[in-house]
Amino acid sequence: MIIFVYHFFAFFSMKRYAVIVAGGQGVRMGADRPKQFLEIGGKPILRHTIERFLAFDPGIEIIVVLPASRKDWWREYCRQSGFLERYSMVSGGFTRFHSVQNALELVGDQGCVAVHDGVRPLLSRPLLERTFSAVRTYGAVIPAVPVVESVRRVGEEGSEIVRRDGLVLVQTPQVFRTEVLKAAYRQPFSPAFTDDASVVEAAGGTIHMVPGDRFNIKITTPEDLSLAEDLLRLSSFSER
Amino acid sequence: MIIFVYHFFAFFSMKRYAVIVAGGQGVRMGADRPKQFLEIGGKPILRHTIERFLAFDPGIEIIVVLPASRKDWWREYCRQSGFLERYSMVSGGFTRFHSVQNALELVGDQGCVAVHDGVRPLLSRPLLERTFSAVRTYGAVIPAVPVVESVRRVGEEGSEIVRRDGLVLVQTPQVFRTEVLKAAYRQPFSPAFTDDASVVEAAGGTIHMVPGDRFNIKITTPEDLSLAEDLLRLSSFSER
Repeated sequence: MIIFVYHFFAFFSMKRYAVIVAGGQGVRMGADRPKQFLEIGGKPILRHTIERFLAFDPGIEIIVVLPASRKDWWREYCRQSGFLERYSMVSGGFTRFHSVQNALELVGDQGCVAVHDGVRPLLSRPLLERTFSAVRTYGAVIPAVPVVESVRRVGEEGSEIVRRDGLVLVQTPQVFRTEVLKAAYRQPFSPAFTDDASVVEAAGGTIHMVPGDRFNIKITTPEDLSLAEDLLRLSSFSER
Repeated sequence: MIIFVYHFFAFFSMKRYAVIVAGGQGVRMGADRPKQFLEIGGKPILRHTIERFLAFDPGIEIIVVLPASRKDWWREYCRQSGFLERYSMVSGGFTRFHSVQNALELVGDQGCVAVHDGVRPLLSRPLLERTFSAVRTYGAVIPAVPVVESVRRVGEEGSEIVRRDGLVLVQTPQVFRTEVLKAAYRQPFSPAFTDDASVVEAAGGTIHMVPGDRFNIKITTPEDLSLAEDLLRLSSFSER
């Protein structure tokens, strides 16, 4: 009982941050704006993402990374649509690494921090619970799903099979003790950094994996957009 | 015009086969039967898959690979439910390779053959068109989607980052000229064969890739099952 109470308080007393990375400027979808601002279910993708974190923990401190050139536009959207939740905004950097580095300036030294793709609006409460809960024990937690397909690498001379055993696809939110992530982001940039886990690992950290969620898709194509729109409409999903 | 007419007739005159691989015996989902027999939208997954091929081409010759121990059960299901479409059944072999080998006994020497996972019931008509159309030009066609996540390989000592550039996830249907696939399947078995493309490649064939479809999921977990069920219900999907 004492242990339970301890965990109960440890869970709620740990200050939580979320860095939502939405600094992309790409308009490859053939739309008039970067994909994090496209609407599904009548609201921008980014807004869904922010709301998911707030629904999970109203006290979470959110830092949204936006393209510098779009900050005014986003502010205006929020004002007009009455989306007046409290969160901070920082400008995107040259790469994702630099964007997260910017955001970490606003993260304190105590507690834990989730780094999440702005274009993953379907993250579920159980996934947030799994990752934030595991970070109490481990310093660095990432969600991953097994690869069930054959995998190939396409090069200039066609493609070749990649060994599949043990392969997993890594999602976000990736959740860290703030001191672990902040220390890792003091390293110089390397193009080998594909996500936050790779940054922490390069700094000597150990990564703990928890089960991801197949619904937690990263919206990168028009098909993904329509899939996300469909999934949002499903009652079975909105209850998650 | 002459070229168009030629292609038009070549397209419709090429005999088509589909090998639907549903030989798995696994009941890992905690159900009372292998996953290809679980129901979504009131029908077994395998039935959806068969119906998709028949809707695309009523003249297609279908060979379904089933676990030997489940053939009677499936026959009985079909009889009782009035699913009396014409297709052949063969028994699954020791591995997927041996299952396909069994099925190819029933495939003629002319035309083209799709090999498809029985647990991918959401394949779309455009995907069937893309693969069957490309095989008129290339001997071996596979659908693939780019990897948008970080990729790791989990080993005994934790996990490590896998280079992501050029990585794609390979789906089915994989479609081949029948003579290409039949020749490739005369090779001795190797555990390196993860799909039909890898068999053809080991026999010296060249693989042509076409865009896959993110909806075309392989049902392997209870979450996939509920996702597939949801997607089937969507009108936007059933129109595809």
